[in-house]
Amino acid sequence: MRIIDDRREGYLEVLSTLFPHSGRAYVVGITGNPGAGKSTLVDRLIENYRASGKKVGVIAVDPTSPFTGGAILGDRIRMQRHFLDPNVFIRSLATRGHLGGLSRSAGDVIRVLDAFGCDVILVETVGVGQDELEVTRMAHTTLVIVPPGMGDDIQAIKAGILEIADVFAVNKADREGADSTVRDLEQMMSLGHEVSSVTRGHSAAGSHVKAERKAGEPWRPPVIKTVAVKNEGVADVIRACEEHRKYLETTDDGQRKALSRATEELHAIFRDALLTAAESRAKAALEDALKRSLSRTTDPYSSSAEIVRGLLAGEF
Amino acid sequence: MRIIDDRREGYLEVLSTLFPHSGRAYVVGITGNPGAGKSTLVDRLIENYRASGKKVGVIAVDPTSPFTGGAILGDRIRMQRHFLDPNVFIRSLATRGHLGGLSRSAGDVIRVLDAFGCDVILVETVGVGQDELEVTRMAHTTLVIVPPGMGDDIQAIKAGILEIADVFAVNKADREGADSTVRDLEQMMSLGHEVSSVTRGHSAAGSHVKAERKAGEPWRPPVIKTVAVKNEGVADVIRACEEHRKYLETTDDGQRKALSRATEELHAIFRDALLTAAESRAKAALEDALKRSLSRTTDPYSSSAEIVRGLLAGEF
Repeated sequence: MRIIDDRREGYLEVLSTLFPHSGRAYVVGITGNPGAGKSTLVDRLIENYRASGKKVGVIAVDPTSPFTGGAILGDRIRMQRHFLDPNVFIRSLATRGHLGGLSRSAGDVIRVLDAFGCDVILVETVGVGQDELEVTRMAHTTLVIVPPGMGDDIQAIKAGILEIADVFAVNKADREGADSTVRDLEQMMSLGHEVSSVTRGHSAAGSHVKAERKAGEPWRPPVIKTVAVKNEGVADVIRACEEHRKYLETTDDGQRKALSRATEELHAIFRDALLTAAESRAKAALEDALKRSLSRTTDPYSSSAEIVRGLLAGEF
Repeated sequence: MRIIDDRREGYLEVLSTLFPHSGRAYVVGITGNPGAGKSTLVDRLIENYRASGKKVGVIAVDPTSPFTGGAILGDRIRMQRHFLDPNVFIRSLATRGHLGGLSRSAGDVIRVLDAFGCDVILVETVGVGQDELEVTRMAHTTLVIVPPGMGDDIQAIKAGILEIADVFAVNKADREGADSTVRDLEQMMSLGHEVSSVTRGHSAAGSHVKAERKAGEPWRPPVIKTVAVKNEGVADVIRACEEHRKYLETTDDGQRKALSRATEELHAIFRDALLTAAESRAKAALEDALKRSLSRTTDPYSSSAEIVRGLLAGEF
């Protein structure tokens, strides 16, 4: 993987060669704010997938700083017990301070793990920002983990999570506030749909609203209660993900999502290739533009437009 | 602002014209996870800055989805009371689903508010992801708001926040766990520095570690306890920001930061201009590449390389 990680000479050829061998893995994006118990749940998902004989890839995307490139380790210690399992591939991935660098790198690693024969690839990200959106757009199914008792704060994240969630897990469901968090999530979803009249029981972990979706109806993300530390509800999460996968495989929605994943991937690769090549060719011009910007001789908008014009005219 | 927001014909000329009139405002980036009480504190900061006669600009960056473009409103309601104040400019800003689009847009709006004569511009973002990093790199001073009682979870965000924070506010400091959160933050910072022997008192909101920095020593982010709902500690936060501003104005660190802000800005503008122009010129080629990628005839790495080569040779 070194050649891919470091983007050494020839890494594009490697990815290009792996391409025909990829496309089989099922990619699950997993996101949620710090404190939701995400890594514990991921750890349990690995365990459950392994128990059913699946080869599992895990990509842990770190909200690292481009300043130091340092990664979060503490949070990932729980996963350590899987490091010795030859059928679990765990890769930590840090942003490189390059716009779009994260989704590009995640895409590369997904490609490699896929070609290596992983049945399931879990991509874990933190929070709901642009990073997460880019990454989850590469996933077939996105699992959003919510801690109980978010109360008013759930408002603050709802716009983001409702858009990306295919499955919700309300984790730490044995704590106070879990039921009301489940209710809140369902209420939010009802705003966009008819309120379902299905009787709902939320007492035990793992209980969730049966989608009762009829053919042709859009997917409605199930809300599942989990207690990851006790391995409760985790099998239900996997079941819900599988249901979503089947939904994608048999509907126009799935077709659309496949198209949008391919588009997203192509554009991420294209942008990265373009910016890398262009910034290298225009290095001197950009340095000059910076000087003129600092001395306030030429504004950065005019300089940039001029450089772009030259680049696309083949002058660099 | 419409012309800037929508990037209508001529908006680059407008920004270019405003450029010489900008460069005076003091930009404070404010970040923290949902639940930290960020908007309440921002509301109080506006109030305090207004009380001292400053003209205040506020840019509220929303973690919106590129899917709908929808913005979070609930969280911003607290700010409403400032909407009628002619010396407060509040702009909500959503990402546009374009890589780097957020930092580019934020930069444009900062430019406009700056040229309009705002003394202070508060840029509020949610969470600590790539978005936040981009945006905070445009700020002179970055204030990170942390809720009390993060406990173990603070580990999960530490890599990100320690890198970007110039000032910490432990908000809701009247709740349980505030003192230990202050201790945790300081302990983390001590790992990179000598442990200071200054006696510390953390009992009241507003109390904070006096930096006691000698000339030539690097900036060490003060940790300030606040209770934003009661307006406690808010003046101390403003004071700490002012101290940081003075630090920047008188040190090499400040020079470096100014250079890196200008570089960041130029590159954001350049990348945006390049991607916009290139994707428009290569539209047909990209569509063709997508088809070949879906039919698995040509992999996206090879197609992208080919398109980039053509673009930079002036063939499109």
